[in-house]
Amino acid sequence: MKNVLYSNEVNTTLKTFIEGGDYNLVMVLVDNNTRQLVLPHIACLSNAHVIEMPSGDEGKNIDSLMSVWRQMEHCGATRRSLLVNLGGGVVTDLGGLAAATFKRGIHFVNVPTTLLAAVDASVGGKTGINFMGLKNEIGVFAHPQQVIVSTCFFNTLPQQEIKSGFAEVLKHAMLSSHEEMMTLLEMDINSVDWRLFLDKLQASVEVKLKIVDEDPTEQGLRKSLNLGHTVGHAFESMALAKGKPVPHGYAVAWGLVVETVLSHMKLHFPSDDLYSLARFVVDCYGPFHFTCDDYDELISLMRHDKKSTNHEINCSLLKKCGDVVINYNIDLNDIKAAFDIYRDLMGV
Amino acid sequence: MKNVLYSNEVNTTLKTFIEGGDYNLVMVLVDNNTRQLVLPHIACLSNAHVIEMPSGDEGKNIDSLMSVWRQMEHCGATRRSLLVNLGGGVVTDLGGLAAATFKRGIHFVNVPTTLLAAVDASVGGKTGINFMGLKNEIGVFAHPQQVIVSTCFFNTLPQQEIKSGFAEVLKHAMLSSHEEMMTLLEMDINSVDWRLFLDKLQASVEVKLKIVDEDPTEQGLRKSLNLGHTVGHAFESMALAKGKPVPHGYAVAWGLVVETVLSHMKLHFPSDDLYSLARFVVDCYGPFHFTCDDYDELISLMRHDKKSTNHEINCSLLKKCGDVVINYNIDLNDIKAAFDIYRDLMGV
Repeated sequence: MKNVLYSNEVNTTLKTFIEGGDYNLVMVLVDNNTRQLVLPHIACLSNAHVIEMPSGDEGKNIDSLMSVWRQMEHCGATRRSLLVNLGGGVVTDLGGLAAATFKRGIHFVNVPTTLLAAVDASVGGKTGINFMGLKNEIGVFAHPQQVIVSTCFFNTLPQQEIKSGFAEVLKHAMLSSHEEMMTLLEMDINSVDWRLFLDKLQASVEVKLKIVDEDPTEQGLRKSLNLGHTVGHAFESMALAKGKPVPHGYAVAWGLVVETVLSHMKLHFPSDDLYSLARFVVDCYGPFHFTCDDYDELISLMRHDKKSTNHEINCSLLKKCGDVVINYNIDLNDIKAAFDIYRDLMGV
Repeated sequence: MKNVLYSNEVNTTLKTFIEGGDYNLVMVLVDNNTRQLVLPHIACLSNAHVIEMPSGDEGKNIDSLMSVWRQMEHCGATRRSLLVNLGGGVVTDLGGLAAATFKRGIHFVNVPTTLLAAVDASVGGKTGINFMGLKNEIGVFAHPQQVIVSTCFFNTLPQQEIKSGFAEVLKHAMLSSHEEMMTLLEMDINSVDWRLFLDKLQASVEVKLKIVDEDPTEQGLRKSLNLGHTVGHAFESMALAKGKPVPHGYAVAWGLVVETVLSHMKLHFPSDDLYSLARFVVDCYGPFHFTCDDYDELISLMRHDKKSTNHEINCSLLKKCGDVVINYNIDLNDIKAAFDIYRDLMGV
């Protein structure tokens, strides 16, 4: 995809883009974190109108969206204005939706500042906000004019934030090849200089872009990107409902293990790769605790996933790394058996 | 455009569409008027989930949109569900936006029940709501899977509603040819059997569709559809601000006269056609009263039109019927002279 650039010279790259466009006004959307920590380092935005939104998933709602619309109108934005989304996935998701709906759509650029946003949220054209307690319930498919993917902001990220993004990197590697997956599983994630990770990040983003290119609105193939997420979302929702929220990426990592167990059970995914994955996940993310008593609740959550069309449970499974089967219909007994095996593997 | 059907057998046509789709749920969006007067006559919707919204432009806002989203969620809509927008332009504009943003987009069908919606709002892919007092400030370009254009609901419409839509029919004719315009100007709009108007309505809608097809997101040619609207919107906004709102189509009709005066002044639009138009408009719509003291306010409103990029006043003008010039930059003295001439022509 030609509109994704990989560069740790963010200011230069963004400056070139802005100067090449015929914009009458440049706005930058930030949260508290990126306003303080990132914005001051991007010289070409020193005269941009600053639009603010709350940080964190709880701020990804209709009130914040309305506030962003109002701030854009107040600073005089027209259809020829540009919005730069500078932040994590919450900023790029909400900012993309705000831009796509303001006066029926203005140009926007994503500059993801977290690993999770860089590898997932900021590319692929999904935008959204949460509504009625449902994740990304309201949104559109809309592509930024430019995404600038960099790793120069990652060294200062909290370790939890890095790990959360790394689960999506892992997912892309599993959709790519055994070799890609093993390269990641051999990394010591606690001592990486992320500035040097840009090539690997590019490879990871390109796995996603290739799939999205073939199926932009999620009619088929794009569902392969859902690997780990059918179960992961259920873990995330259950944890939230119990008042003990877990980071999205952690839930995805645990979900990857369960869905790889299912892949092994149903499609003979190699057991060695399953064990390598499970070992890495328990080391890096710890286990996710639940008991037999939670199975029914988890199954109910999976049946009401946004991507479920008839309240059946459909997963993307792997025959092996790089060989995906979408829309695999999962039997309730199989999912329960997979939960049992997961708990054994994770020692919970 | 293959997704617009012209038929006074609305129930049969809609039934065929719904049965041809693989929808797990059908919803119909109505306002008070269409729930009572139209919905009972469409048998194929007797089992549809009814979603309600307020009638009238003042209900075309974010609160109504959120209410529609909530009602869709409550009745169990998924990405494979269908929303039928049954109503005037407020229903098709808001319903289109609701469908386009719900779970990142579900299918929708427009069944316009007013002349204005049939000839304008329901076709062309614009959706929107008003926000911060600005018309259609928030919206997206999104195409319905099907539009069913009919005239069978028009005979019971209030005369004001019919006249409002007729201004857009007139605009399309002026963008088409002298002959098309004269055919309309010779009609006695007070004694038409609208069921017999379907062929003429089709010709009118197709003028718009041809233009939209060539320029779906309003980069250039589509601006020709703005004929009459730069001035018309200013009339509409000023009337609203004075607490004496006028119907949109009336404002467009008066705007057409002013912009045709400008076309005559700057591009030698034939004076005979200008006089014919002015006579029809004053007979049908009455005059719009304003004085020299209002000129500055009207000009300020035009400079802040959503379609103005640099606070300049750009109009679509005509060399003659069927020969449009877009982005014509209007000098302030010319607009004032045109207002003078308009007031003469209309006797105000």
